Amino acid sequence: MSELDNLTSPSIFIGRQGEDDIISFGSGQPDLPPPKEATEGINIRQDLRYGLIQGEYELRYALSREYPRSTAENFIITNGASEGLDLIFRAIGKGKVLLPKPYYYSYPHIIRLAGMESVYTELNEGRIDLDDFRKKIDECTAVLINSPSNPTGRIESIETLKEIEDITSRKKIYVISDEVYKDLIYERENYHIQGDQVITVNSFSKTYAMCGVRVGYLWSSDQSIVDKAIEIKTHTSMNTNLVGQDMALRAMKAPKEYIVAQQNIWRERRDLIYKGLCDLGLDLWKPEGAFYVLPRVDRPREFLWRLYKKYHVITYLGEWFGAPDRIRLSYALDKKDIEEGLNRIDLALKNI
Amino acid sequence: MSELDNLTSPSIFIGRQGEDDIISFGSGQPDLPPPKEATEGINIRQDLRYGLIQGEYELRYALSREYPRSTAENFIITNGASEGLDLIFRAIGKGKVLLPKPYYYSYPHIIRLAGMESVYTELNEGRIDLDDFRKKIDECTAVLINSPSNPTGRIESIETLKEIEDITSRKKIYVISDEVYKDLIYERENYHIQGDQVITVNSFSKTYAMCGVRVGYLWSSDQSIVDKAIEIKTHTSMNTNLVGQDMALRAMKAPKEYIVAQQNIWRERRDLIYKGLCDLGLDLWKPEGAFYVLPRVDRPREFLWRLYKKYHVITYLGEWFGAPDRIRLSYALDKKDIEEGLNRIDLALKNI
Repeated sequence: MSELDNLTSPSIFIGRQGEDDIISFGSGQPDLPPPKEATEGINIRQDLRYGLIQGEYELRYALSREYPRSTAENFIITNGASEGLDLIFRAIGKGKVLLPKPYYYSYPHIIRLAGMESVYTELNEGRIDLDDFRKKIDECTAVLINSPSNPTGRIESIETLKEIEDITSRKKIYVISDEVYKDLIYERENYHIQGDQVITVNSFSKTYAMCGVRVGYLWSSDQSIVDKAIEIKTHTSMNTNLVGQDMALRAMKAPKEYIVAQQNIWRERRDLIYKGLCDLGLDLWKPEGAFYVLPRVDRPREFLWRLYKKYHVITYLGEWFGAPDRIRLSYALDKKDIEEGLNRIDLALKNI
Repeated sequence: MSELDNLTSPSIFIGRQGEDDIISFGSGQPDLPPPKEATEGINIRQDLRYGLIQGEYELRYALSREYPRSTAENFIITNGASEGLDLIFRAIGKGKVLLPKPYYYSYPHIIRLAGMESVYTELNEGRIDLDDFRKKIDECTAVLINSPSNPTGRIESIETLKEIEDITSRKKIYVISDEVYKDLIYERENYHIQGDQVITVNSFSKTYAMCGVRVGYLWSSDQSIVDKAIEIKTHTSMNTNLVGQDMALRAMKAPKEYIVAQQNIWRERRDLIYKGLCDLGLDLWKPEGAFYVLPRVDRPREFLWRLYKKYHVITYLGEWFGAPDRIRLSYALDKKDIEEGLNRIDLALKNI
């Protein structure tokens, strides 16, 4: 089965995810529409000249109202959270990064591309193991956390986040907190991790269902990090596209009911897929945020490939996310499709 | 005059360029409108989902029709030419880059950020000195050329470009050709530098006056470079914003008369500023493309600062571009403003 050797990244599924007979638990993007406010009244001919590298003032000001003790100067508007992370690690530029594992599949690459090195701490039941964290943090310049997490769907407890604030503050270690799923928590309000050493990355992609628009941002109270990141962005991409910034600012004006309504839809889907997979006898963590499950399966490569070729179900390999004994399913699809997908997985499991 | 110590980058002028009494020869962006085709009929609600990292197929296909012996696979759509360059140098990742001097001010930074080192070859009358080029090329992995050039406004002769093709092809050295001003040549048609080792970077910003939209592209016939750049972009920014790609594709459908009409306007402005500065006794090269002049002046820092504070004229320091005895003027403003600016420069020169 040499085809299995090609299972190196999600790109093997490119072009197939939208096909009729395919049920895709692959790509992690909302299938729901953005708020109507995001696109109403945009005049794209206004947005054609260079903007500030740091991002449009109005958008940064609006964000500062949502972050405690912030001003517009603490933010940079980026090409999605991806560029935010890339700028941060390039700005730090050397040393080791403590990375909880499983991790979002781009993290080790972004860290390596910036000339830094990943040190892994294995999650325990999908959550940070503070004992292991404490053992490894001393050799690191930074730690990268992601709560709610892609691919585990888990959130860290507020106690853990406060403990991380405390440890890293005392040791002067950067905390890079990727919070792109902060508005997709089922269990509690988001907790803004804080401190002089904290750098937050966020995005409009998931909260407002506008992934292709590519607008994210980073926040830091450390002016030297903000300045270095702006300097790098000046040379490597200049301003983030202005139409997208315009849409982001308008999306923020949507009523909070939009976000609540989204959360309710995601929670229903989460309940459906979690119960469905448990009923099939799979071992998995219950997602508390984001929209991913990461069940353990036997021989994941073979299983994923058979699911795809024989049952036309797309899933992602856990090994891309540092979880070699699992597969990842995104439940960003409607309940009817989730049910059909569960039926096919049932068949596949029965016919091993 | 300690204020002169702050003259470290164009950012000192941020927020001033649009003010009433200011004549700005600073920022390098067209003041002319984009073709109406660029923005007509766009439905931004169609462009909200993730796109291909490499860029939308239709846009890449349209570009391939303009490049000899190309297919859509040879292109990556990027966040402006800046990201194109950043991806290329990160994909190459080590070694030295031969860089003609004066240079676009981001080049040394992009090269350094990618972990590479710049080796300079001084331009002769604003053009590549092939003798010096030959002496220094052997220690280099790549050469970065920019014709028409920002900041010199000069173009390389077709003979020089063919000689560079020949040298680099024999020695297997990458040629990165930044051609963002290729449609702004006053003297001849653009010559597409070619070869297996050539990587071209381009943009819709200058040709179609849509800088803030941030859509550029890179072209290479070397599949391994294209693949590596896509891999890096997957982790560091994902797809380029889709509304911008949509606008770029529509702009390409504008009649060629749009580009010709723009060239005529730029040529008139070039004639005006070139003659004007010569008449003031300044020593400068005649621009053959782009929209910059780079006159030599005495004590450039003091002169630039006095021009700005006393005469409200913005210019950029040559030293930001590797030309410490010069200042750069962009003539992306209408003839009336160019004339007013020339009058003020005249006064400033007389009152030294």
